[in-house]
Amino acid sequence: MEQNIIDAALERVRAALETGDVDEAISILATLHPADRAEAFADLPPDDQSEILPRLDAEATADLLEELEDEAAAGVAAQLPAATLADVLDEMEPDEAADVLGDLPPEQAASALAQMEDASEVIPLLAHADDTAGGLMTSDFFALRRQMTAQMAIDFLRTQHPDMETPYYLYVVDRANRLIGIVGMRDLIVTDPQTTIEAIMNHEVQSVPVGTDQEEVARIMSHYDLAALPVVDLDGKLVGVINHDDIVDVIEEEATEDIYRLANVSDGDLQVFSPVKLSVRRRLPWLLVNLGTAFLAASVISLFEATIAKLAVLAVFQSIVAGQGGNAGTQTLAMMVRGLALGEIEFKDAWRAMAREAGIGLIHGMAVGFFVAIGAWLWRGIPVLGLVIGLAMIGNMIAAGIAGTLVPLTLKAFKLDPALASAVIVTTVTDCVGFGLFLGLATLFLPYLQYPGN
Amino acid sequence: MEQNIIDAALERVRAALETGDVDEAISILATLHPADRAEAFADLPPDDQSEILPRLDAEATADLLEELEDEAAAGVAAQLPAATLADVLDEMEPDEAADVLGDLPPEQAASALAQMEDASEVIPLLAHADDTAGGLMTSDFFALRRQMTAQMAIDFLRTQHPDMETPYYLYVVDRANRLIGIVGMRDLIVTDPQTTIEAIMNHEVQSVPVGTDQEEVARIMSHYDLAALPVVDLDGKLVGVINHDDIVDVIEEEATEDIYRLANVSDGDLQVFSPVKLSVRRRLPWLLVNLGTAFLAASVISLFEATIAKLAVLAVFQSIVAGQGGNAGTQTLAMMVRGLALGEIEFKDAWRAMAREAGIGLIHGMAVGFFVAIGAWLWRGIPVLGLVIGLAMIGNMIAAGIAGTLVPLTLKAFKLDPALASAVIVTTVTDCVGFGLFLGLATLFLPYLQYPGN
Repeated sequence: MEQNIIDAALERVRAALETGDVDEAISILATLHPADRAEAFADLPPDDQSEILPRLDAEATADLLEELEDEAAAGVAAQLPAATLADVLDEMEPDEAADVLGDLPPEQAASALAQMEDASEVIPLLAHADDTAGGLMTSDFFALRRQMTAQMAIDFLRTQHPDMETPYYLYVVDRANRLIGIVGMRDLIVTDPQTTIEAIMNHEVQSVPVGTDQEEVARIMSHYDLAALPVVDLDGKLVGVINHDDIVDVIEEEATEDIYRLANVSDGDLQVFSPVKLSVRRRLPWLLVNLGTAFLAASVISLFEATIAKLAVLAVFQSIVAGQGGNAGTQTLAMMVRGLALGEIEFKDAWRAMAREAGIGLIHGMAVGFFVAIGAWLWRGIPVLGLVIGLAMIGNMIAAGIAGTLVPLTLKAFKLDPALASAVIVTTVTDCVGFGLFLGLATLFLPYLQYPGN
Repeated sequence: MEQNIIDAALERVRAALETGDVDEAISILATLHPADRAEAFADLPPDDQSEILPRLDAEATADLLEELEDEAAAGVAAQLPAATLADVLDEMEPDEAADVLGDLPPEQAASALAQMEDASEVIPLLAHADDTAGGLMTSDFFALRRQMTAQMAIDFLRTQHPDMETPYYLYVVDRANRLIGIVGMRDLIVTDPQTTIEAIMNHEVQSVPVGTDQEEVARIMSHYDLAALPVVDLDGKLVGVINHDDIVDVIEEEATEDIYRLANVSDGDLQVFSPVKLSVRRRLPWLLVNLGTAFLAASVISLFEATIAKLAVLAVFQSIVAGQGGNAGTQTLAMMVRGLALGEIEFKDAWRAMAREAGIGLIHGMAVGFFVAIGAWLWRGIPVLGLVIGLAMIGNMIAAGIAGTLVPLTLKAFKLDPALASAVIVTTVTDCVGFGLFLGLATLFLPYLQYPGN
């Protein structure tokens, strides 16, 4: 829907720029929602961007940087002179400003910081890693004291914080700034103006320490349906607030990361239209790792080369056994990786999960084994070939269930991402077991597999 | 973190139930956050659940049903007598009640509805599919008229809606209930009490029609960072509101669906500990489809059986070419599926994406082809084998790039999910092309591939 609006605006912006009318281009962009404006700007060729950028005031540039993807925002910021950038960063939410500064070359970040007026709000945020609660939070929140009345809180809100970013909850702190309660914006409205905050606040307030991993933050906010989550330091002092929209980004990011890692792409930021060089750098190493494991599987086949030389039909069927094991293992892996990511599977469930998937592997193996046996028999007219491939299929499906559960659980036990490299390992297992079982059984039954006279 | 709390509580609940002290068990559960309580309850064996359930009052049961997963909630609801269920549903948010009713057998849903007091709030919601804006929205929202003053709105809020579910924004409607504006809860507080709503409302309010797909709803709320999104009917009348927490569920659900479909598991609700029968029913059909395509790939190999009979070493290397193509195709596929899901790739980008991935396939093919050629040569001492496998690798990598882009785009063009079945089709292409190219080239170069004397 909004894509059409953006495309239509883009066409008009380009037309305006072609006639050299930059002001007209800017006023067309100004009609868009800030999120759409940023998307349209990002879609413009670099030359057009450079024409528009110097003509925007600090506030418009700040809006743009807040809405752009991290990488694009850093690119735009890098083009600005230090003094301009400082003004722009002053206009931004502190957490967004910190993100931009974190993505700039250190000298450029330092000189912009030195010229900022509100640097003190941003500097503490720079200390936290991007993917932690500290990296997600904004320091622009609103803390009440419990002795205040509702009316005092409303007056304070009216005079002090006209455009605060976190309008959902208000937090209550004690004398030492330790978080002690939470008040909904609505509770503040509907209560009698003379009621104290103490009387309406909820003492049970969920919070996380600054170092909490963003995936855990997302899980807590999603589990408890929170629009905002306060962040505390080691002393329990309130230092920031994370908003629901940051969490949506985290959830999408983590899901992309899982999908990519299962598909052996090692960078969640990579997109189809990323630079070719970057794409190759992020994908080729995994293909080479896979090549190594493919040679391993090939060496299993080479153990049975003499058998294949006697009976070339084995080469036709070997890939079916290995491939089906890989498919079944990938199914188990996808369910394990997702279950671990969403907190549905714990490490204590390891044995139960493995036994279960091995059992399902047996069932799948018998069913698929039955059909492949019938298929091989009918196709080649060798009943024992059907038996051999059916048995190998059952064995490989069980191996797939075991590897598909144990590999991600083992990675998790070593505090690694369960999705990382697990697809490579599981398919290596199912390839080696599949080729080994099928060709091994075939070697054993070789006298019964050959056509008379072969 | 909360998992420890839940586990500790569960242990005490079970101990209490073993001594027959159901009241104690209930009071232990009552100490937990409603979300944790539901998780603990779901973890109890069915017998324990049946002991606790009849002793809960309507409100406690309502809280439980609201927090349980859809399937579990329907299971609990199905155990309740119609009169009790009606009371429980009256206590629930209308959208949650509608979800439960939608998952019950029709007769049971009808008899509960007949005995409900607030059935009129729930019935309109039943008309909408679960995965549309209408299925996600709640009808419990708060609409203002533009002539009201801020003070009137606050008084109305205070007296009429003490526990409304959507505390983030207030919506403004005209005489015909058409949505015309939006007011932030905070704007209501900080403005002068005599200001009219008209003066503080924002006229540009994002909304979606009831039939909008949930994935599109999630994309809009995430793109514009909305905590809530109003839903309108065909006449533009405000009929409901979707909250941020519903969207987090949708985003997780859609990501799980993509991951599962890429791994050939056809049901996003399936988990490792789902019933074995269900698991087999959702996974086995895909394995059998894969078996069909595996026979197709095998038939390509069988075209070259005579070549393999002369040179069994080809059977050792054929899987490397096919497998690497599959890996490269899966990389492209993951990026395409994710890009389409997040709206980063449009259909108009099809040719550009395909050309790009084919080009990257060429680069990957040359790099992987180089290493596999060297590896094959060194391992077997036949330089022409290296040449053949290297050339086949380049061709298959290009095929992988083309199939990896075209298959999801074609599915999308037919309004199907780009993730659905695309992994099967892409790997079938890379298997057939890989086997065909490698064995075909080997047949062509056969005289140069054999050891002297072979």
